[in-house]
Amino acid sequence: MTFNDFKIKWTPVIDNYLASHLKLEVNNAKLSEIMAYSVMAGGKRLRPLLFLATYSALNKEISEKEVRIACGIELIHTYSLIHDDLPAMDNDDYRRGELTSHKRWGEAEAILAGDALLPMGIQWIVEGSNEPKLVKIITAAIGANGMVGGQYLDIDSTNNKSVANDANFIDKMEWQKTGCLIQASVEMATIHGKASSQSGKQLVAFAKDFGRAYQIYDDLVDIVETTQEAGKATHKDQASGKNNTLTLLGAKKSRQELQELIKRAKSNLANFDDSVLVGFLDLYQKVL
Amino acid sequence: MTFNDFKIKWTPVIDNYLASHLKLEVNNAKLSEIMAYSVMAGGKRLRPLLFLATYSALNKEISEKEVRIACGIELIHTYSLIHDDLPAMDNDDYRRGELTSHKRWGEAEAILAGDALLPMGIQWIVEGSNEPKLVKIITAAIGANGMVGGQYLDIDSTNNKSVANDANFIDKMEWQKTGCLIQASVEMATIHGKASSQSGKQLVAFAKDFGRAYQIYDDLVDIVETTQEAGKATHKDQASGKNNTLTLLGAKKSRQELQELIKRAKSNLANFDDSVLVGFLDLYQKVL
Repeated sequence: MTFNDFKIKWTPVIDNYLASHLKLEVNNAKLSEIMAYSVMAGGKRLRPLLFLATYSALNKEISEKEVRIACGIELIHTYSLIHDDLPAMDNDDYRRGELTSHKRWGEAEAILAGDALLPMGIQWIVEGSNEPKLVKIITAAIGANGMVGGQYLDIDSTNNKSVANDANFIDKMEWQKTGCLIQASVEMATIHGKASSQSGKQLVAFAKDFGRAYQIYDDLVDIVETTQEAGKATHKDQASGKNNTLTLLGAKKSRQELQELIKRAKSNLANFDDSVLVGFLDLYQKVL
Repeated sequence: MTFNDFKIKWTPVIDNYLASHLKLEVNNAKLSEIMAYSVMAGGKRLRPLLFLATYSALNKEISEKEVRIACGIELIHTYSLIHDDLPAMDNDDYRRGELTSHKRWGEAEAILAGDALLPMGIQWIVEGSNEPKLVKIITAAIGANGMVGGQYLDIDSTNNKSVANDANFIDKMEWQKTGCLIQASVEMATIHGKASSQSGKQLVAFAKDFGRAYQIYDDLVDIVETTQEAGKATHKDQASGKNNTLTLLGAKKSRQELQELIKRAKSNLANFDDSVLVGFLDLYQKVL
């Protein structure tokens, strides 16, 4: 199966599961609508697809349990986007071409929608897996030493020129903000799919490079695409005093680093017959 | 052992664990400080004590694992306070006599401190218990159909006169806001402590009444205590258009209901030798 076939097969399954279960499982219809507004705003479903593809690469059959875990990851990702967009944070009015949650529903509503999506995501992961290890992986990945810690470094360093040339700082911040959750998506699949120690290591190594590459890709989208293409404000990182790999290295060297990461990520998949995971790397072609 | 002895024994253990582990386990020193600022602001540690006392009532010895779970509950409780105080929510400047997190550190910092405490609380619970059931209980209790759902109903209904006389609505809102997490603290202890089916049912029934009573108590504190005694702004619920049992029933009937709940809560503890849990109900004397 190619990456494209896999994506075409599973994206609607993920979308349907998210839409129907947010309706079924959130008792308050209005809160459910606010949560679903952001979840159903047309994301690529990258993390849930990555979870499912990794599980599949271990020659396991995907059942509804795995779809529940995958969708739990997407709920958590969506919570992080809602909170990142808040006025006190990145203050974004648009996301994926639509008004951000706080612009559409109000600020308290957006904070609470995020606060509801986060534990529900963990709930779906533990219900789908019944596995404490997955809860340990996801909570570590999104907490103070993971995603939220990265967002904190970002907020804390914005307009701070002393870190603008600090490659270690920027690496760490970008890794925590984006890489951690991507790695966790793959790592949870290796545990849930009972990967051998060697397969598990190779898949996690792939995820590390894929996750690092994703952040560079995301920064490049900011300069390559127009606002209309990206569905959100672009060309704003530099203007808003953000520090990232792009502002550190410039576009040319960022692209070189991205190509290096893709190469290494591919090498870590050499032992897998499955061609779906390799296909995830094609995503990055549009900024190269 | 009396409730007071229990409290005097375990409160410093909880406080020390929280302070030392927030320092040890959060890599970013400044983020750790912001998280600890609210966690260490002098709470009563009611929920962790309740978890430990329930576990103890099942004739189990409390070890560091149980302290970790108990403290995980407190991290989650603290996250909810930080977010509730935000300008877009209840807009409170003081909590427990100190500036609220957003007043002290900034709004983005307060949002992120809460966002970091929530998954860390779940992480400590799963690490202390290694038990998927506890994760299911806690995530359900604090999510869209629990604590966050209650806060949403509160925000959504403030200044909405149509619910001011709706006892069902107010019951539900108050239960979700406060009761759910209190019940979960007891329920997790019954699972972790391997309570018999009958003991488990009695303890959860006690927790339901205790939790419902707690919210009425909290509303009464708002009118009984001065701002200095309560450590936060009082006499503000009515002024700010909040609907609660007190605004619905008035002080006299609220006290009657509180006394009824205490009586029933006690009856559910009749089969337990332990006198610590009964002692939790004495907390309510000061508003009766």
